[in-house]
Amino acid sequence: MDVSQEQVSMTRYPNLLQHLNKRKATDMPVLHQQTFRLDIDKTSRALYVVGTVLKANLNRSAPPSSKYFSVQCSPRVQYRITPPPPESGTLPTTLNGNTMLLITMDTASEVENDCKLSVMYYGEKTEVLGKAVVHLTAVEISLDVDADRDGQVERNNPNKGSWMWGPNGHGAILLVNCDSEHTYGKRRDSESAEVTRVSDLKDMSPMVLRTSGPAKLPAGYKLTMHISQGDAESVRVFRTRSTAGMHQTLKNLFYKSFVKDYPLVLGSEDLSKEVPYLGGNAEMKFYVEGLRFPDKDFEGLISISLSLLEPSSQGFPETPIFTDRVVFRVAPWIMTPNTLNPVEVFICSTSDNYQFLKGMKRLVENNGYKLKVCHEYMNRGDRWMQDEIEFGYIDSPHQHFPVVLDSPRDGQLQDFPYDVLLGPDFGYVTRTAYNEEVSSLDSFGNLEVSPPVIVNGTIYPLGRIIIGVAFPTATKGRNMTKVVQDFLWAQKVQEPIALFSDWLLVGHVDEFMTFVPAPDKKGFRLLLASPDAGYKLFRGLQKDGHGQAKMFDGLGEKEEITVDEILSDDKLRAENNYVQSCIDWNRDVLKRELGLDDDDIIDLPILFHVMENRAVAYYPDMVNMIVLGKNLGIPKPFGPKVDGRCALEAEMTSLMEGLGLSCTYIDDFASYHKLLGEVHCGSNVRREPFSFKWWNLEM
Amino acid sequence: MDVSQEQVSMTRYPNLLQHLNKRKATDMPVLHQQTFRLDIDKTSRALYVVGTVLKANLNRSAPPSSKYFSVQCSPRVQYRITPPPPESGTLPTTLNGNTMLLITMDTASEVENDCKLSVMYYGEKTEVLGKAVVHLTAVEISLDVDADRDGQVERNNPNKGSWMWGPNGHGAILLVNCDSEHTYGKRRDSESAEVTRVSDLKDMSPMVLRTSGPAKLPAGYKLTMHISQGDAESVRVFRTRSTAGMHQTLKNLFYKSFVKDYPLVLGSEDLSKEVPYLGGNAEMKFYVEGLRFPDKDFEGLISISLSLLEPSSQGFPETPIFTDRVVFRVAPWIMTPNTLNPVEVFICSTSDNYQFLKGMKRLVENNGYKLKVCHEYMNRGDRWMQDEIEFGYIDSPHQHFPVVLDSPRDGQLQDFPYDVLLGPDFGYVTRTAYNEEVSSLDSFGNLEVSPPVIVNGTIYPLGRIIIGVAFPTATKGRNMTKVVQDFLWAQKVQEPIALFSDWLLVGHVDEFMTFVPAPDKKGFRLLLASPDAGYKLFRGLQKDGHGQAKMFDGLGEKEEITVDEILSDDKLRAENNYVQSCIDWNRDVLKRELGLDDDDIIDLPILFHVMENRAVAYYPDMVNMIVLGKNLGIPKPFGPKVDGRCALEAEMTSLMEGLGLSCTYIDDFASYHKLLGEVHCGSNVRREPFSFKWWNLEM
Repeated sequence: MDVSQEQVSMTRYPNLLQHLNKRKATDMPVLHQQTFRLDIDKTSRALYVVGTVLKANLNRSAPPSSKYFSVQCSPRVQYRITPPPPESGTLPTTLNGNTMLLITMDTASEVENDCKLSVMYYGEKTEVLGKAVVHLTAVEISLDVDADRDGQVERNNPNKGSWMWGPNGHGAILLVNCDSEHTYGKRRDSESAEVTRVSDLKDMSPMVLRTSGPAKLPAGYKLTMHISQGDAESVRVFRTRSTAGMHQTLKNLFYKSFVKDYPLVLGSEDLSKEVPYLGGNAEMKFYVEGLRFPDKDFEGLISISLSLLEPSSQGFPETPIFTDRVVFRVAPWIMTPNTLNPVEVFICSTSDNYQFLKGMKRLVENNGYKLKVCHEYMNRGDRWMQDEIEFGYIDSPHQHFPVVLDSPRDGQLQDFPYDVLLGPDFGYVTRTAYNEEVSSLDSFGNLEVSPPVIVNGTIYPLGRIIIGVAFPTATKGRNMTKVVQDFLWAQKVQEPIALFSDWLLVGHVDEFMTFVPAPDKKGFRLLLASPDAGYKLFRGLQKDGHGQAKMFDGLGEKEEITVDEILSDDKLRAENNYVQSCIDWNRDVLKRELGLDDDDIIDLPILFHVMENRAVAYYPDMVNMIVLGKNLGIPKPFGPKVDGRCALEAEMTSLMEGLGLSCTYIDDFASYHKLLGEVHCGSNVRREPFSFKWWNLEM
Repeated sequence: MDVSQEQVSMTRYPNLLQHLNKRKATDMPVLHQQTFRLDIDKTSRALYVVGTVLKANLNRSAPPSSKYFSVQCSPRVQYRITPPPPESGTLPTTLNGNTMLLITMDTASEVENDCKLSVMYYGEKTEVLGKAVVHLTAVEISLDVDADRDGQVERNNPNKGSWMWGPNGHGAILLVNCDSEHTYGKRRDSESAEVTRVSDLKDMSPMVLRTSGPAKLPAGYKLTMHISQGDAESVRVFRTRSTAGMHQTLKNLFYKSFVKDYPLVLGSEDLSKEVPYLGGNAEMKFYVEGLRFPDKDFEGLISISLSLLEPSSQGFPETPIFTDRVVFRVAPWIMTPNTLNPVEVFICSTSDNYQFLKGMKRLVENNGYKLKVCHEYMNRGDRWMQDEIEFGYIDSPHQHFPVVLDSPRDGQLQDFPYDVLLGPDFGYVTRTAYNEEVSSLDSFGNLEVSPPVIVNGTIYPLGRIIIGVAFPTATKGRNMTKVVQDFLWAQKVQEPIALFSDWLLVGHVDEFMTFVPAPDKKGFRLLLASPDAGYKLFRGLQKDGHGQAKMFDGLGEKEEITVDEILSDDKLRAENNYVQSCIDWNRDVLKRELGLDDDDIIDLPILFHVMENRAVAYYPDMVNMIVLGKNLGIPKPFGPKVDGRCALEAEMTSLMEGLGLSCTYIDDFASYHKLLGEVHCGSNVRREPFSFKWWNLEM
């Protein structure tokens, strides 16, 4: 039995529900039916949209005492009577209370009113009581998008009006137009009132209105495109003014000054606007622009409708007689883990970091990557390139580009992302904390992302975002601002994990963890700072007779301290016990939320000590490294030397060598470590996007 | 191969994803593992939570040069070595880099430190290098809710930490505590700082903390309950102060003045608070109160956590070593369609509506329902009882009560819902339009709900909400305020449909549609006003020789008009053609969105005319009726009389009789119809809730 036809009153038959174990069945295609009125004793005109059904209640328009009727029509018109009469042909048929006439046509008209349908009504003795005549014009109308995500706008995709995740899913994709076609005097393109360069059209989703029919619509009919008020803050629509949208040459795309050819159709000021009907077989091209990223109050879905309006009597609004609808989802902002290939490395040049700069330059350029230095006039002494920004990207079948997320931290580097990074095919997004205190936990050294993982059978092909906050049990503590957290969670495709980082003075997750690529297991290892591993190494040194070896050798007598002295410092040991318990807590969360085994984790020998009741690295924090493919740039730890070689470097190198990774130790002692940061804090890496497409996620 | 164990690097093996066609596998129960540290050469103490696993890396704590180890423990302690050693027993086992010791216990301790575990480390020649000793205390902790929705708080439901829709779903339910235990000097209970009456506890969800263990926790350990900042605006938690929570007598529940016994635990001022550990086998009862309904920025899910905190060195925050979490969903506000049994009927008494009141009183009381009259001191002349309020209810396994939604319309009736309706077990909710214009479309004659329907296989067992707005294609027009629309859509369980009602001067959907119960088909019929049906009836009268019969007979000469005059009025005919096209547009939407056939719809003979470019009923609008079970209270149409009987009443009665419905015609001509409303606009019905439970919906 067809469920949709089933007689059902669930209040009376509640157990019916038990027979239907899934509420949502698959969408069945249903021809759009339109109630249609016949007028007696006058000729009316109607516009018909191919693919719909006009449904007229014959009894409603019948003259009083009508008993029979007959239907005649042009060859291109098909009709059907329901309930089907026992008789056949054009002979008079018995009329009853619910006799319906269903009218369809297969093809568009080439001229207006080229088809005709008439209904004759007869009385008891088959005398004619009245006649209804309709002149019909058929048009084809389809608002089309790239609902199958292949980069092409296909014709009338049956799924274009909904959105589904996954490789078998469907639904078009929209980018937030957050880059700037201009390098000077720039702002984000979505903030410009108009299309300032034709190259900007690449950042918008193509949408095509395909129509077929006579040279013009019958008098009074018109096409209107419209969006809801709710969607208007998230989307704008432009169109080609040119009527030859389909013949537009590639050349146009690469030369500017065609701005006036792309008028705004829909936006917050215009929720509904007439669009021209071009006549014949025509395509009109539209460009759809996303204005905002998914967020707490915006799931990311928007829809655009195209209606055919029928004129009404004077003074009354036109009635939409056909509506076609397409749905887009705004592409999320996606972060890139250490396992993705680097493209560019960013660092700051300051008055005191020449050595560091030189070491980084060698590491980056020797491995074939681009180094971008932010100079002092721009960084104003703020060297924490990791903390002001996070690189990510947005992706669609037609376009993708990097997008920088600007932290509400807003140190002296605050103008860098907008003034330097924003540009053609380089987007910018930020979140402003209006009613919240911004803390050190808002720096993006506290925002990382894991490589792809599978957790209890749930796949995260784009990894999971990792942030650091206070313990949820803490009655007070620092947190990442809610505006940024809401933004990160709303992107959905890299479901975030909140770690506990408030135990650190600076409070960033990159002070105790990172990921490096690996040839085996899950394709990566999680590296964790481990005071226990540190003490184990120092105890081993002592046992092997190196108790008098010095940490910080060569950095000045004030800094130096022997292995024996470190091991005999009970306060330091107690502080490190506390640090280890904090890291262990995070280790358990990471194992659970990333589906890791202990074998996926490597403990690095790093000691901390406590300042102002919170922890900082005791010597350069080797986990705070930069990962460039198989090459690691690691803070030089200045550990105790055995046979002239730093025991900490030796241990680190040995742990990484097993994974085929090569370690370069960079001296950041004076210019970063002493300022409570290291190599990772002082750099940033823009990476290649995932080859995996976010819309193929199963959600 | 176990997916969670699989070696995976999706960036390198993107096709792996194709083998996993569902991203979300079923949750597999995973024992909570906690990284555990062993200290050499001193005795440590640990608190163990039954059901977790303590996991210690033996190598991490081993003295330098350790080669072997052995483990000994009390009989109640179980341990396992991984990777499993080839040897067995307590003989020394070979230690390697990743040897892990997993510790579990089955039952809670009766006294502190009643169990012990020790690890001995040996060197190359099995000489003892060190020993780690741990004294263990085991506790059982479970934060429990009614996750299986049977009204009872079961013990440690494995699904309590998540929420799933459907009859096979799970997850606890929370009510917005929007009633008032007080009738005088009242406010909503959720706005009171404390539990003002013990009877208020019935409106909260019970939650139980079950603990088992020694008389007190080891020194420094404590239990803390906590919520996130985001959830704090949606939930509060109270608890019994009494330590004998499980022995509380029923008597307590019915007498007041036990307020101080129910202190606030969590709220917007307290995101985290210590809760007492009672010792032995104990249950502490909590009461969870919902503060806000689902809305655009609140999906309705909230979670509450209970953590066991371990003391840290002085000055450092305690570390949570175990967290139990429960999830609630806030119950949506649910509307009641005409097919549900009435409980009370509300109407206004005004200086000029005595006849109407009398007619309604007879109809309501003769059929055994309660009539509640709102008197003039309260209604201040505002008779539109339908427009100021909408009755609905909220439901949970432990409690349900009616909740009135107060319209932002705010006519002279505006104090009625709060001052009169709000009370014990009668909730109140409203939405305020701060930045929007409130129009006539915000009156709740423009907010209705269908009976249960099945649409293309999708079941709506609670029906679908119906509102009226402007055409989406209109460049200007009146709409229902966004705050109310957002609220309605966010309730989710009666997915709304937007109709076009702006063509009406008053602009309410109840001017052209209603639902009546039916014994067959889908259990109801949709009634639609139909000018075509009206003209058909009038033409039939004319043809049968009643052209001189008068409409409005007896209402004064000024009102009277003959059938012939009506039929010869071309302007009226044109206006009704327009009205019919508007209703037909809505008919098509309703057919599509409610899965209706034409057989499910009955056209009622009703004419409209146009005032100020919008439509109003030409004679009393029979579709604007009150539905009380099988009894309909219908505006008396004052139609032309045939053989002394009103032809409109005769037609209406005949259409309804076929469904077993009885019609009572109520004279609302002077006191309602002339003021542009009718019986439905001037009344409201509180109905019984659905027997179907909203959480059994498959979403």
